[in-house]
Amino acid sequence: MSQSEKLLLQALAGHATARPPIWMMRQAGRFLPEYREVRATTSSFLEFCYTPEKAIEVTLQPIRRFGFDASIMFADILVIPDALGQKVTFQENVGPVLEPVTDAGAVARLSADGLQNHLAPVYETLKGLSAALPPHVTLIGFAGAPWTVATYMVGGRGSPTQAAARLLAYREPQTFQALIDLLVEATASYLIAQVEAGAEVLQLFDTWAGSLAPDQFEKWCVAPTKKIVEAVRAIHPDVPIIGFPKGVGTKAVRFLQETGVQGISVDTGTDMIWARETLSPLATVQGNLDPLALVAGGAELDRATDALLENFAGRPYIFNLGHGIEKETPPEHVAQVVRRVQA
Amino acid sequence: MSQSEKLLLQALAGHATARPPIWMMRQAGRFLPEYREVRATTSSFLEFCYTPEKAIEVTLQPIRRFGFDASIMFADILVIPDALGQKVTFQENVGPVLEPVTDAGAVARLSADGLQNHLAPVYETLKGLSAALPPHVTLIGFAGAPWTVATYMVGGRGSPTQAAARLLAYREPQTFQALIDLLVEATASYLIAQVEAGAEVLQLFDTWAGSLAPDQFEKWCVAPTKKIVEAVRAIHPDVPIIGFPKGVGTKAVRFLQETGVQGISVDTGTDMIWARETLSPLATVQGNLDPLALVAGGAELDRATDALLENFAGRPYIFNLGHGIEKETPPEHVAQVVRRVQA
Repeated sequence: MSQSEKLLLQALAGHATARPPIWMMRQAGRFLPEYREVRATTSSFLEFCYTPEKAIEVTLQPIRRFGFDASIMFADILVIPDALGQKVTFQENVGPVLEPVTDAGAVARLSADGLQNHLAPVYETLKGLSAALPPHVTLIGFAGAPWTVATYMVGGRGSPTQAAARLLAYREPQTFQALIDLLVEATASYLIAQVEAGAEVLQLFDTWAGSLAPDQFEKWCVAPTKKIVEAVRAIHPDVPIIGFPKGVGTKAVRFLQETGVQGISVDTGTDMIWARETLSPLATVQGNLDPLALVAGGAELDRATDALLENFAGRPYIFNLGHGIEKETPPEHVAQVVRRVQA
Repeated sequence: MSQSEKLLLQALAGHATARPPIWMMRQAGRFLPEYREVRATTSSFLEFCYTPEKAIEVTLQPIRRFGFDASIMFADILVIPDALGQKVTFQENVGPVLEPVTDAGAVARLSADGLQNHLAPVYETLKGLSAALPPHVTLIGFAGAPWTVATYMVGGRGSPTQAAARLLAYREPQTFQALIDLLVEATASYLIAQVEAGAEVLQLFDTWAGSLAPDQFEKWCVAPTKKIVEAVRAIHPDVPIIGFPKGVGTKAVRFLQETGVQGISVDTGTDMIWARETLSPLATVQGNLDPLALVAGGAELDRATDALLENFAGRPYIFNLGHGIEKETPPEHVAQVVRRVQA
């Protein structure tokens, strides 16, 4: 099968496909018993991400089980701060814990010098996946967008309001700009190398874009994304990029006009009639089945699936969730949706 | 001063006022040393809310200190589950903890029979405020919207994704509907009695509306709000109601068209050019200074204040934050904004 026959690439090229391609954010993960089995063999989560054999295996598991049309490499958005020299650990029932970067000195101590060596295992994972995936399956690489990665770097952990990063951006805009600039450079290099290792599509996760005031959103989400897209495109002009500025509502229009991404992943709350009318003319829309509808299952899940299919009939569209799969999700509910979309 | 000269009432009647009225969500609260002093005299937070003398005092503190144009009674949205017979406590560094309502039996055990007696101290607070407030200050009553209150009732505490309530709504829609119906009835009675006790404006806080998928938003946010507005209006046709469906993006349009509220409070992320063009013709817009810009202060705070004033010049508009005041806010930053808006 040639590249041009892959459904995800067709949809991202702006074509209405015979049926939409389907994949799910966090499709490789804790909801699968076979994932938990492999995960249990390594205590450190980052070491797990950096072990190509294991990362390849867990990436392939949902492809084998469900027959998704795309495969997103298993990794974490916090490999970037780790590669820049910040101390990053993952703690059970807490999540990521980082030594916070809170002033200009701490930003200056970060360095992209060892980045490519540090991330070499991720590229090995992509090369292995590229060789192992069935021919119709598109390989997706990804990174966290600078703003979202910075919220963890500054706050030291996840937080519901991202207050630490938002405050640093107001109080010391130059320090924060230096951090974002470093992240733009590192993320662009990382994504370029991912394409060279076999990634056919890239997704930029900006999970916490929704907490920013509109002027801050321009500075810390739109502008850095635009720079990354330009840098990647200067080397690899044809690789499609999907943005996921979560929770930004109407500001998604501005995001698309400025950044020039080919795809936009939209969150659970997004009104898909609005997305079809307003975003679809600007980029291929991806989303937004409620991950909790997937947990609940039943006839309601079929109804929600059908509503998305009908809404985007005759348009380029990628079936996905509005956020990552929940760990409580029964795998048979995922199979139910895949069957229905691929029917 | 007659009612019609109060700036907040003028703005909510759809008039562009000489300058916008200003108040701030959570203006009575932990950021004020004089609040912390009164709060320290009662260990239980709910008992504090139910002590009119103390609730009146902390409500008046920010009026005295800053000269706001409106005063929102001090209370909590969880007085409703408390009044319905659910066990509610507030724990230091945790927040509210409730005995979760997770099935039809638990919903059936709740009862609105003792509601008005239980909430009588809140009405006493309003009566006292009505007598004590300066003549130009508008008295605002409020309640949590049914969806947001239900997320705490079902989940037993705050959660970043409101997963417990969203799941119950998918899995047992009839049980969840029974809970929402009870909350609609209780909230309408509560708000009607607030008006009788002196509230001149009502605000409905739907803090967690943003996590709902669009069809769920219709069922659990729009429809219950519409019922409450109709019930209040049947008794008090002239009291303006402000909705605050936080994080709902474009769905705010549908919310306004369906519910018929006179005002809409918009969150920090909302693009105010869009709000002016799209929401302003439907209702008076209130918001949306970033509470973290208020913490940070400085010239950037003046700039953000001016941007809001310029954007809404010549239109009905209520100056406010996009979310409640943070406890780390220096009081002098609040004074800086009030001076600038009232200048």
